[in-house]
Amino acid sequence: MKRNIFIKVQYDGSRFSGWQRQPDKRTVQGVLEEGLSKFCGKKITLNGASRTDAGVHALGQTACFEGDFAIPAHRLKIAMNNYLAGGLNQLNPISDIRILTCEEADIGFHARFNALGKTYRYIIHNGDEPDIFRREYAYYVATPLDIKAMEEGAKGLVGTHDFKAFQSSGGQERLTTVRHIYKIDIYKKNEDVIIEITGDGFLYNMVRNIVGTLVEIGLGKRRPEEVSYILESLERKNAGHKAPAQGLYLVEVYYDKTKLG
Amino acid sequence: MKRNIFIKVQYDGSRFSGWQRQPDKRTVQGVLEEGLSKFCGKKITLNGASRTDAGVHALGQTACFEGDFAIPAHRLKIAMNNYLAGGLNQLNPISDIRILTCEEADIGFHARFNALGKTYRYIIHNGDEPDIFRREYAYYVATPLDIKAMEEGAKGLVGTHDFKAFQSSGGQERLTTVRHIYKIDIYKKNEDVIIEITGDGFLYNMVRNIVGTLVEIGLGKRRPEEVSYILESLERKNAGHKAPAQGLYLVEVYYDKTKLG
Repeated sequence: MKRNIFIKVQYDGSRFSGWQRQPDKRTVQGVLEEGLSKFCGKKITLNGASRTDAGVHALGQTACFEGDFAIPAHRLKIAMNNYLAGGLNQLNPISDIRILTCEEADIGFHARFNALGKTYRYIIHNGDEPDIFRREYAYYVATPLDIKAMEEGAKGLVGTHDFKAFQSSGGQERLTTVRHIYKIDIYKKNEDVIIEITGDGFLYNMVRNIVGTLVEIGLGKRRPEEVSYILESLERKNAGHKAPAQGLYLVEVYYDKTKLG
Repeated sequence: MKRNIFIKVQYDGSRFSGWQRQPDKRTVQGVLEEGLSKFCGKKITLNGASRTDAGVHALGQTACFEGDFAIPAHRLKIAMNNYLAGGLNQLNPISDIRILTCEEADIGFHARFNALGKTYRYIIHNGDEPDIFRREYAYYVATPLDIKAMEEGAKGLVGTHDFKAFQSSGGQERLTTVRHIYKIDIYKKNEDVIIEITGDGFLYNMVRNIVGTLVEIGLGKRRPEEVSYILESLERKNAGHKAPAQGLYLVEVYYDKTKLG
């Protein structure tokens, strides 16, 4: 009998060549599919909600896969987490991927197409000295950022807009570049400036291009009012730099829970 | 004119095969010597205070090197930190090694032989769930530790003892296995149990073997009173397991400051 399994997974992206399976590279999808195929007894193809880039982390990535196999979902989670930790130091068996939940979903439910929205977090370490222990986990900006100005700039991005100017080339083709951003929270936590963005969907590198632009506003290199002009221009070259991958975390993917079976 | 340069350095040990230079391996000494030789214009040999193992971190490792070269010490620090960061992502130029200070010392001053003592910190993550982002930075122990019992056990280690039972085989030959531990602090910080040990010197793997023994006491597998028996036995097999490298940090090396010139 065909089943559809929905998983929620976290990973430290620093030693992965991103989510998407690629020959001869260690990718999150590749590592997960290899383990799942082992325990399901047949070749598994995962559909992930977000194709995170190399170095990007996830606290709550989601994915699903269909097939006819016997293992109960809760057993699959345990087996997978043991398997993932297996190759590492046995005294401290923690992998860089961890399955948080594994459950049955309705046939046809798709982690990406059924997603109603996502939250991303971007961590900027804005301290006096770089922290070598966080070089894979935050974007270090030495100059103090003007958070008020960044918040002002972020206001111009919230709502429904054509975000073409914040899309990098090279992603998959999209039917439309119009997206809705529900909210952008910017706050300070110790030496960090944290930006959280929730939207119904995101174009290729959209969060990193937004963050780079907000950082330039926070550094006084751009005025907050420029955001509207950048949006209207629809030109990538008018937006700011692409913030580096290591500060980005996929926090959560939202669904209509009734579809999860 | 011959000079002696004293450096203080921090590093994230997770991607190094330890401190000591080895052919075809990335080691802290190897990476530092390569850069220093470049800026000093001659082959540099570093003497480090502690030969940290693969995966062990340092917040304040020290080392020195002698030679006849022109570059001022403060320039060398800047040049080295730029050089170390150079191979990485230029938008977030943080290396996994960082020179904190670089200064002239008296000829003959030696980072290891002149050290009066050292402090090591060991971080145990004692939370309900493992943290994939800390797998290189803490020892994950799922079962709650009895800190009172660990403190009781630690008391038996403070003072002057023959620590042969806490020495792993394979280290360099020592004239004596008697060492003095000044203090052991054990405290909880959020989900972590942190052990800080200050002593006049440490045998090979001594801190990790002590921590492993204290963890077994904290888990109730051993009684705190066993520590005296282990010490007296002088037998490694009577002590606990060797705690993994990734929880260990060399915090500070102490000197008689007047010798630093």
